[in-house]
Amino acid sequence: MTRSVLDVDADDLFELTAALVAVRSESHHEGELASYVESRLRDRAQSLTIDRVDANVIVRTNLGRDRRVVLGGHLDTVPANAGNEVPRIDGDVLHGLGSADMKGGLAVLLRLAEELNVDSSRATHDVTLAFYECEEVRDEFNGLGKVFEVQPELLAGDFAVLLEPTDGWVEAGCQGVLVAKAGFDGERAHAARPWMGSNAIHTASDVLTRLAAHQTDVVDVDGLQFRESFQVVGIEGGISGKHNVVPDRCTITVNRRFAPKYTPEEAEAQVRELLEGADDIEILQAQVAAPPNLSDPLVDEFVSGLSLPVRPKLGWTDVARFAARGVPAVNFGPGDPEIAHTQGEFVTRESIEQCYSVLGRFVGVV
Amino acid sequence: MTRSVLDVDADDLFELTAALVAVRSESHHEGELASYVESRLRDRAQSLTIDRVDANVIVRTNLGRDRRVVLGGHLDTVPANAGNEVPRIDGDVLHGLGSADMKGGLAVLLRLAEELNVDSSRATHDVTLAFYECEEVRDEFNGLGKVFEVQPELLAGDFAVLLEPTDGWVEAGCQGVLVAKAGFDGERAHAARPWMGSNAIHTASDVLTRLAAHQTDVVDVDGLQFRESFQVVGIEGGISGKHNVVPDRCTITVNRRFAPKYTPEEAEAQVRELLEGADDIEILQAQVAAPPNLSDPLVDEFVSGLSLPVRPKLGWTDVARFAARGVPAVNFGPGDPEIAHTQGEFVTRESIEQCYSVLGRFVGVV
Repeated sequence: MTRSVLDVDADDLFELTAALVAVRSESHHEGELASYVESRLRDRAQSLTIDRVDANVIVRTNLGRDRRVVLGGHLDTVPANAGNEVPRIDGDVLHGLGSADMKGGLAVLLRLAEELNVDSSRATHDVTLAFYECEEVRDEFNGLGKVFEVQPELLAGDFAVLLEPTDGWVEAGCQGVLVAKAGFDGERAHAARPWMGSNAIHTASDVLTRLAAHQTDVVDVDGLQFRESFQVVGIEGGISGKHNVVPDRCTITVNRRFAPKYTPEEAEAQVRELLEGADDIEILQAQVAAPPNLSDPLVDEFVSGLSLPVRPKLGWTDVARFAARGVPAVNFGPGDPEIAHTQGEFVTRESIEQCYSVLGRFVGVV
Repeated sequence: MTRSVLDVDADDLFELTAALVAVRSESHHEGELASYVESRLRDRAQSLTIDRVDANVIVRTNLGRDRRVVLGGHLDTVPANAGNEVPRIDGDVLHGLGSADMKGGLAVLLRLAEELNVDSSRATHDVTLAFYECEEVRDEFNGLGKVFEVQPELLAGDFAVLLEPTDGWVEAGCQGVLVAKAGFDGERAHAARPWMGSNAIHTASDVLTRLAAHQTDVVDVDGLQFRESFQVVGIEGGISGKHNVVPDRCTITVNRRFAPKYTPEEAEAQVRELLEGADDIEILQAQVAAPPNLSDPLVDEFVSGLSLPVRPKLGWTDVARFAARGVPAVNFGPGDPEIAHTQGEFVTRESIEQCYSVLGRFVGVV
């Protein structure tokens, strides 16, 4: 049965997700959704503190508990893709832009906030719920990064869970990212007399071969197997439209994902070694990895206490922002990570309800 | 002594060259120079037939001789470079845009035409002098190509000499050109999970290595050593500004210069073999080579009869247009080919006068 989302029952977690999909929130345009979240909570505000910074909404209990748990979810989606901005419910499956990444998680957070708003007395930890903007775009725009910069006290805590789609797994830690651009110089000459010059693309080919053949490692951290990756993501050489010139410049851009065993500096040293032979190397991006921290008491309480399956997170996520500040953090949310950012993304009723159940038990509201 | 070209003595071949440099004629802007040439000849027109097609001026004797020799020179220059559009005479050296390529040759042609105009009775062959546009730009604009297309009878002949700068050597024949673009396909994936896709740049690297390592041949034709070349002149892969995506497309552009032993079809087959592994191959340019034809009677009369030194022409020139029509053709002109298209190009009085003397003797006007 396919229904319009206009007749949703917003008390139902699954239909609340559909309502959140219906409020478009592509990156840089999260204001309406932030206001929707904020107004739902302010209308019934009782014990919660609500702060807003641009399109970021931070909601906190003030119970004086020993520990504070931060639960975070980004409000933004990637751009609409071939009509998928219109949510569509088919039985217990919700299709539509952001359904998997991560309006299902946002519905869980919003419902937890509403429960805490009504009665937080049963909560076992103080809880901070962070709804934030611009996770899907360049780091400089990231809402969590912005709040950490301007009002870090709003995000203080002892453990963080980000509701990225993980299909009900705990995805522990995350790998780091290092993007580097290597340049190779040559000397121009007429293509009919190449011996008068030096071909930068030919020079780069030796290094390219080494890069393409590079075998990456699987690195054990806390018993989790982090499968690293190393990819040439760009190459450029020659002068556009000029086929008669021996090229004097070629650049190769590489992307390395490194296990949380390494610092960005260590990862950079390894990449520089692979790029040996380049005339210049520029580091375009360096993002710290996050350790799984499975032996941390709160992580253990979450993972072991709730008997959740654990696997390593290979992509970089905002858990690294917490890890960089000494706060253990994991990814845990509804939806299949493999279909995030695809035209046909979807989320199931079961995965949303299961996530709500786990987090509700962890913070003590169910 | 440095002098302005304003006080040139246009009866002096060297100073006539300076006057021709002073009339700017960058490609697509040869009209003024074509009119200058045409009006100098029409003003004193006696026995010559003068035809004009756009900015091409074709001048012919009509003596009924057994053989007709075509002497050709392009009117255009490459773009001005850092002020070199102003000619400067320093003793017996003329500096300036087009001085070497090929206003010195044009001065020789113009003076020969003027001599024939006054008295062609001594001429040993009928002579066609072709002043043409757009040699320095894409093939489709080439003036010689245009005249061959619309009025081929104007360029009919038994032997052709093009006054490209050769430093007084006969540069026989010319190599052919084949430009091909090879494409490699992959499958996009997130750079954190590259095993979900296939990296087109990694795939292309095997072929690139083969191309960069390829040793070209030196091919003997008529006792001349044609040194072939094979260069990767362009490579492109990845999505500009996207460093997180395993690239699904990489293209490699190659430029092969092949000896006149081969047809373009043979050269293409050899290039396709080198590109084996590509998913698609597009031929962007295929220009026929010109054989040296040293045993042709008129070529032999020119080369041996005048005791000229001979070497192979490695770059492609318009001699191939004549060769493709069964007319043997050579390059022979004043100026150093190595400095053509450089900011500091120049030509010497001696090289212009020597070229005039050789061609004058060949056609019988000196």
